[in-house]
Amino acid sequence: MFGIKFCYHDAMSDITMTHKKLKVGIVGGTGYTGVELLRLLSVHPNVSLTAITSRGEAGLAVADMFPSLRGYVDLAFSDPEKANLAACDVVFFATPHGVAMNQAQALLDAKVKVIDLAADFRLQDTAVFEKWYKMPHACPTLLADAVYGLPELYREKIKSANIIGNPGCYPTTVLLGLAPLLEQGLLDLNAPIIADAKSGVSGAGRKAEVATLFAESSDNMKAYGLNGHRHHPEIHAQLRHLGGQEPQFIFVPHLIPMIRGMLTTLYVKLSAQAQAMDVQALFEKRYQHERFVDVLPAGVLPETRSVRGSNQIRITLHKQADAGYLTLVVVQDNLVKGAAGQAIQNMNLMFDLPENAGLEVVPLLP
Amino acid sequence: MFGIKFCYHDAMSDITMTHKKLKVGIVGGTGYTGVELLRLLSVHPNVSLTAITSRGEAGLAVADMFPSLRGYVDLAFSDPEKANLAACDVVFFATPHGVAMNQAQALLDAKVKVIDLAADFRLQDTAVFEKWYKMPHACPTLLADAVYGLPELYREKIKSANIIGNPGCYPTTVLLGLAPLLEQGLLDLNAPIIADAKSGVSGAGRKAEVATLFAESSDNMKAYGLNGHRHHPEIHAQLRHLGGQEPQFIFVPHLIPMIRGMLTTLYVKLSAQAQAMDVQALFEKRYQHERFVDVLPAGVLPETRSVRGSNQIRITLHKQADAGYLTLVVVQDNLVKGAAGQAIQNMNLMFDLPENAGLEVVPLLP
Amino acid sequence: MFGIKFCYHDAMSDITMTHKKLKVGIVGGTGYTGVELLRLLSVHPNVSLTAITSRGEAGLAVADMFPSLRGYVDLAFSDPEKANLAACDVVFFATPHGVAMNQAQALLDAKVKVIDLAADFRLQDTAVFEKWYKMPHACPTLLADAVYGLPELYREKIKSANIIGNPGCYPTTVLLGLAPLLEQGLLDLNAPIIADAKSGVSGAGRKAEVATLFAESSDNMKAYGLNGHRHHPEIHAQLRHLGGQEPQFIFVPHLIPMIRGMLTTLYVKLSAQAQAMDVQALFEKRYQHERFVDVLPAGVLPETRSVRGSNQIRITLHKQADAGYLTLVVVQDNLVKGAAGQAIQNMNLMFDLPENAGLEVVPLLP
Amino acid sequence: MFGIKFCYHDAMSDITMTHKKLKVGIVGGTGYTGVELLRLLSVHPNVSLTAITSRGEAGLAVADMFPSLRGYVDLAFSDPEKANLAACDVVFFATPHGVAMNQAQALLDAKVKVIDLAADFRLQDTAVFEKWYKMPHACPTLLADAVYGLPELYREKIKSANIIGNPGCYPTTVLLGLAPLLEQGLLDLNAPIIADAKSGVSGAGRKAEVATLFAESSDNMKAYGLNGHRHHPEIHAQLRHLGGQEPQFIFVPHLIPMIRGMLTTLYVKLSAQAQAMDVQALFEKRYQHERFVDVLPAGVLPETRSVRGSNQIRITLHKQADAGYLTLVVVQDNLVKGAAGQAIQNMNLMFDLPENAGLEVVPLLP
Repeated sequence: MFGIKFCYHDAMSDITMTHKKLKVGIVGGTGYTGVELLRLLSVHPNVSLTAITSRGEAGLAVADMFPSLRGYVDLAFSDPEKANLAACDVVFFATPHGVAMNQAQALLDAKVKVIDLAADFRLQDTAVFEKWYKMPHACPTLLADAVYGLPELYREKIKSANIIGNPGCYPTTVLLGLAPLLEQGLLDLNAPIIADAKSGVSGAGRKAEVATLFAESSDNMKAYGLNGHRHHPEIHAQLRHLGGQEPQFIFVPHLIPMIRGMLTTLYVKLSAQAQAMDVQALFEKRYQHERFVDVLPAGVLPETRSVRGSNQIRITLHKQADAGYLTLVVVQDNLVKGAAGQAIQNMNLMFDLPENAGLEVVPLLP
Repeated sequence: MFGIKFCYHDAMSDITMTHKKLKVGIVGGTGYTGVELLRLLSVHPNVSLTAITSRGEAGLAVADMFPSLRGYVDLAFSDPEKANLAACDVVFFATPHGVAMNQAQALLDAKVKVIDLAADFRLQDTAVFEKWYKMPHACPTLLADAVYGLPELYREKIKSANIIGNPGCYPTTVLLGLAPLLEQGLLDLNAPIIADAKSGVSGAGRKAEVATLFAESSDNMKAYGLNGHRHHPEIHAQLRHLGGQEPQFIFVPHLIPMIRGMLTTLYVKLSAQAQAMDVQALFEKRYQHERFVDVLPAGVLPETRSVRGSNQIRITLHKQADAGYLTLVVVQDNLVKGAAGQAIQNMNLMFDLPENAGLEVVPLLP
Repeated sequence: MFGIKFCYHDAMSDITMTHKKLKVGIVGGTGYTGVELLRLLSVHPNVSLTAITSRGEAGLAVADMFPSLRGYVDLAFSDPEKANLAACDVVFFATPHGVAMNQAQALLDAKVKVIDLAADFRLQDTAVFEKWYKMPHACPTLLADAVYGLPELYREKIKSANIIGNPGCYPTTVLLGLAPLLEQGLLDLNAPIIADAKSGVSGAGRKAEVATLFAESSDNMKAYGLNGHRHHPEIHAQLRHLGGQEPQFIFVPHLIPMIRGMLTTLYVKLSAQAQAMDVQALFEKRYQHERFVDVLPAGVLPETRSVRGSNQIRITLHKQADAGYLTLVVVQDNLVKGAAGQAIQNMNLMFDLPENAGLEVVPLLP
Repeated sequence: MFGIKFCYHDAMSDITMTHKKLKVGIVGGTGYTGVELLRLLSVHPNVSLTAITSRGEAGLAVADMFPSLRGYVDLAFSDPEKANLAACDVVFFATPHGVAMNQAQALLDAKVKVIDLAADFRLQDTAVFEKWYKMPHACPTLLADAVYGLPELYREKIKSANIIGNPGCYPTTVLLGLAPLLEQGLLDLNAPIIADAKSGVSGAGRKAEVATLFAESSDNMKAYGLNGHRHHPEIHAQLRHLGGQEPQFIFVPHLIPMIRGMLTTLYVKLSAQAQAMDVQALFEKRYQHERFVDVLPAGVLPETRSVRGSNQIRITLHKQADAGYLTLVVVQDNLVKGAAGQAIQNMNLMFDLPENAGLEVVPLLP
């Protein structure tokens, strides 16, 4: 009625409960992506939470650390060594970089699928991985089979994958923002692709650090990572893959005093052909069947709160009067579409569940 | 396993979809309680949203005003005069005080049940109503039949009610905090009941006012309403009803730079009998079957974010070393258990649905 | 000792109190730029606050509206018609656009200097003014004599000016960020100048509007004004003036949940000559004698809180590896260097006071 | 004119620069009270910053850690062992509890006065100190000579003191709120004194801890310390001293998502005599000559931002209709009047400077 693709109520019948429940394990459940997986998976109709590990918190009830989960999660954290992850159907790694690549083979041997929310399986080039993450890659052979878990770009590969490298939060916004143009060669790549990205503070994780204290980061903002952010090579590799040539890519992330939310403003030069096109129509067509990508009507600018707590990503396009440039504004919840929600979307695909199962959470506004 | 009453997964089977869907109308859908009703009702398994009225915004798609609802609500606001509310099973009033009492009779005549989120049906004493709300009560006869919609106290009456006066946000915290004591006469009412209450800014509503601008209320806090807050007489009347005598009641609300959330700290003097009792056990027993009241283990203090977006209320008790006093800390989401969620809980009871239908939303943390 | 230009203590002796105090009037003292003028002027050693007008609040003590000023400002707001502004030495207009241009001539006739914090005297092209501000310019002749009040660029003209058009907040960051390059023709203007600007909410003013309520703009961010922001033509005109040719300029402002603070990220292409230069040294030299422009050491990124409440502007330069691009990050307090502080800096110049008189306020951190 | 005691401009002449500058040292300059001392002392007309120590940051320029101080502080942190603190006139300890008491004697021997912002010299009863701070007191003899640094209560003693125990932030609000009543025996001490206190997050200090991360404490609030907060015995001892008898004291602190600011709501029962008195007049008279205590007009409620960055404390009184109770609302900036500002006020008294020297900072609003 209002140009919205479909409405949840119509889709409800797709989410049946006839599937056998998946047994799900989470390695590293004490960070923000871990608790976000728990929030979503604890009420996912096709999931049975089986094990949540934490070396430091073994024995503690999960709901004692995160009282928001009282009544929803009655597991305790278990020691990684003792957790029977091999009995799971799928294991999520919500761990620091470098953990999943050391445990993946054993799980695969036990027929357990692996979804890594860290960077171990995002970069196919192990030299690049080692440069940015300061460690050798532990399983280059597995890496070659891993799929970059961005469903809107790689859905078919994800369905049959055994290992998913779940994308970084910034890359998700940049890549979904630019894919329709890159796929069709509609950018003038003589000009750099510029991504001015803004993230809420939860993106820095649940680590005790002075820089992300409330009294440091509230009522304050800053740019960071100009000398090199780890998402730069990840985005760069995907841009090259999508566009078929080496891009010039400028990426400046900023820290914003919000808990959640990410807004990326993209500045790109359209090819001569694209300057004459209706790019709004192009985007709407490209994403018309994508449940979680919402191309906003021309002139409507997205706010991060419009996706708070949900797996939605919203995109606005604006052709600049000057210089053949297109500006795109992309918003997502960095912990959902930028992390845990996307990981669950991947799980749904891998197990032939409805892609939106467990992900129809209405954004929390205000 | 961890002292949690029951787990959502076990309860899921209670939420069947065999009920015919209720046709639901909302009068005044542009404020925060309105959009919160929409957030929850749009995915309520037993509800079909039928009409949302707004005099000022008639014709506008609801999702254009609240983009968070894109894909979930495809209605437009309709003119109150033209909306066929009489065809609904139930109508929520998310309007300013004084609206519902003028429209309730016509709806009741059409066999439509009414749930008012404003104050029209909260105060049985019309003189008190007129004093605090500066208007005569339009329908004292209906008022006599209206039920105060606090399910944990008045569940049976609510089930058969046709009109509900949904409680104010502050009263919900004070009354659920004190009911177990008042019901059994365990307070020394020679000492005043003191409620030091703190509310997020959404409690002030979605009105354009300087005092609640971001630049005025961020990084700032204040007390307000010392000369008289409208929730004072509402709480006072219920305290008297529950305790069977006239209480002395001191109430100081404060405005806190949070979007949502309410924390009320209660200071009461226990009777000599109660001072010797295990009040923790008393509370746990009183609320053991209440899905939405969570008595925290002794020593665990609640945070407002632990209920963000959910209908949960959490209570901690602490016996002071001095003076026979008990301190209670009560948290809720002011827009959910303090408004829209409680209204839906009332609707569920009135239509014999599972009390938690549509209300199993895991709190958003962080 | 640490590369800092000079230290406040050494400068203190410059701020003598031997000057006769200036009589200062403020028209429109109830907004954020008004109260900020009052904060700074009330303790300015060379100023005597003489009149503060407000049509709506005439008779109200200023300190009753802004209790932060209790003990510092003992004036009441006066009616604009009755205030004897002609007896002042200088009058600041902290009013909406269109007010100052109607009152300036009368004040000039009375030998009163005028500093307008709105846009009336910022744009020399009256056609551009009328297009963006939707009103004819009331005094084109005076406009021709007005000086654009950016001291670091136009100091000598400001000293002898009678009317100052105080720059907008965004323009101050863009222009001070790019002046050293534009003045020397060091940009490749075939590429667009891109300004991705982020502002705290106080930039929207102290008007009662839903969009800037705490519950709307907290924990949230958005881009706005893509279809045209009024600071675009102001910046564009100055860029053209500084660079000597028509620039391509892309400007995207964003609203950030901070009270104060502005951070502008600039993306520009260096000329071939500049790509080989030490631009860090260029900037340090250009601003070495500027008290309020702080070129940060290479690699140090500024935070907005590092200038909170102060007239300082801080700039970081970063040469991108790709594409010959330079990224600049510029921070200021939008209400101080972006408005009231800069206006006082102009006043100091106009009356031959030390340029930093009344402006040595240490930033409030945390 | 508007009931304000005096205006800054009239007081300016008191702040002469004829005093020889004090040589000031700060031990532990990396926390929030340390940087706040630096903010205020760097522009104090009678102070020369001489040494700032930090074991962990020795050699780092202070302005590199706190860029807000660029141009104001050109010292580097020095190693505590190497800093020549004995050459100072006064040394501030902005250190954890337990540091000052081990270094005080050596400084006193060198004729250096000591102001400790931690708790070492606040509690005269060493048994109480040891119980709450879990360490034996290192210098009970010096403790006996130390003065509790609350100028409005102990001004004369402070003037001649060599060691000051600077009060805690919460105690300052409670004690200045209740002193006029306690001093005259106007409370009914059969009822408990209840202090419901709310603090901004900077009160927790600049330590890397998960609980005070932005993503944990933003948009959230909680009570804490119900089982015993270290300010409880400090307040209790002073209440007993002021009131001349053992009080019953209930204290519940809360953490509020603000950077700075403290608001304490006090609930006390007036004696029969006081119930008949004009307590507003009593307070106004008691504090009429106090520069930093502002008794607000009846009915005006204070906001924390009205004192942001300043040494002001503001108090509102409200007689409850019920029960003979008086409610007081007290606000201060926890880092200024609650810590560094009060310490400087003490220094001014100890060295016979104008009490407000260096402390006339207009609050930052908005």
